[in-house]
Amino acid sequence: MGGSLALALRHRGYAHRLFGAGGSPEDLRLAAAAEYPRGDGTAPIFDLCREDPAELPWAEVDLVVVATPPATLAEIFGQLREWISETCVVTDLASVKGDLVASGTALLGGRYLSAHPLVGGERHGFAAATAELYVDALILLTPGGEEVDPRALSLQQLWEALGCRVRMLSPGEHDDALAATSHLPHLLAYAFMASLDDSDALRDLGGSGLRDFSRIAESDPALWTDILLRNREAVRRRLQTLRHTLDHLDGLLAQGSAADLGDILATARARRQQFRFPPRT
Amino acid sequence: MGGSLALALRHRGYAHRLFGAGGSPEDLRLAAAAEYPRGDGTAPIFDLCREDPAELPWAEVDLVVVATPPATLAEIFGQLREWISETCVVTDLASVKGDLVASGTALLGGRYLSAHPLVGGERHGFAAATAELYVDALILLTPGGEEVDPRALSLQQLWEALGCRVRMLSPGEHDDALAATSHLPHLLAYAFMASLDDSDALRDLGGSGLRDFSRIAESDPALWTDILLRNREAVRRRLQTLRHTLDHLDGLLAQGSAADLGDILATARARRQQFRFPPRT
Repeated sequence: MGGSLALALRHRGYAHRLFGAGGSPEDLRLAAAAEYPRGDGTAPIFDLCREDPAELPWAEVDLVVVATPPATLAEIFGQLREWISETCVVTDLASVKGDLVASGTALLGGRYLSAHPLVGGERHGFAAATAELYVDALILLTPGGEEVDPRALSLQQLWEALGCRVRMLSPGEHDDALAATSHLPHLLAYAFMASLDDSDALRDLGGSGLRDFSRIAESDPALWTDILLRNREAVRRRLQTLRHTLDHLDGLLAQGSAADLGDILATARARRQQFRFPPRT
Repeated sequence: MGGSLALALRHRGYAHRLFGAGGSPEDLRLAAAAEYPRGDGTAPIFDLCREDPAELPWAEVDLVVVATPPATLAEIFGQLREWISETCVVTDLASVKGDLVASGTALLGGRYLSAHPLVGGERHGFAAATAELYVDALILLTPGGEEVDPRALSLQQLWEALGCRVRMLSPGEHDDALAATSHLPHLLAYAFMASLDDSDALRDLGGSGLRDFSRIAESDPALWTDILLRNREAVRRRLQTLRHTLDHLDGLLAQGSAADLGDILATARARRQQFRFPPRT
């Protein structure tokens, strides 16, 4: 997601100088070699790439985008506190907020403004980066307190300039909503696959329904263990409601209650039809 | 699915005469007007289309494919018994077997051989038909007894000639496997959507993960009420196992057991990676 943001900033002309750090050696090699069209020729996406972020020219940096797993953020915020200027803004792209926003705000104050772009996929690394990833995306900004620096608030305009819609909500609202729309579905897809017997006979029998339903069960287990535990209170509340629904459905199956079962399925379909999803690309 | 089969039979040259019946008036109109390339020009897909199947020239019919919802099959088998010849073969395309195969076999004997092509999608009707639907598809044939007519067994060769793989299994094996790979995922996707609060705030927050996870919750509620109830014993067994898995995961979230949670997620991902799914088209 960081690589796609770098491409989008360059292709739309919103970056003066761009520095990259971290990632795998292969990612850094690809990032350092990447170019974008400028004038009659091309120019490098990044002015400088370093494995060790300590080696970047921090005095020049106006904006830091930390595009790493949630588990790494608190330590990175602590390092950034030593490196960045008083006017430098810091953001992240993490899909769970809560304590992260509290720790970022404690360390960096109003210069930190957390973001969660509702984009992504199974592919990772700079090789998967595309300048179009954020077009028409929804960006959730989750300020950590009352005192957000006006420069940090200009992040909203930057995302909008990249073609995104922006919505502000509190870290708690974010985590409750994402528990419903992302974290519980991941838990269910993993739970479903884990509940299957390990049978050769089943492996051939998955159609397009199962293919799509279970796709997110191929997400990175370490990343999702961390996300689910960080947001476990909201996830467990949503899971509790789902378990009541499953108990109810099981009872209706036992009773053979076609009318009641049909009502719930029709309600579920109507609710799904009200959602606005990103198009398949 | 019936329309796609008719197109596939014509495009590959496996039909001498084709008759269509049933469906909506719009479907019948589209089917009657549909053509396929033959020689230097085109020819109609169907030689005859009738709203009332009683009006078809039944003495000419060698093979009947009943492509209607499971709830309608038993009655149709009873009608067919009056119309078809001693040598005519009957099949269906239903996604749940059990009593249907028993009733078809009781009425039609070894002339009936039930089939379930693992294909499909949300689109219905002749307008969604495509000659390529069955290419590379897996077809499950579920003989109802020991005495299958050799002509019925030639159905296997017909499906293979259309580019399909065929597997034979008993109606009970079919329904247990499909409970796992299709019916329970549908129940879960419906249950998940039904368990959400009806909140405007959530409707914008679905990403590609939720989009794919919940797609099957837009399936026809009446059809799926019928499928789930017809196969409720196997579905409830699978649901019971899933509920144990969810209880276990809830406990691990409560305890904050990262290692155990990570193990289950990794097991789930490995199992998903072993499945062979149809490609997205």
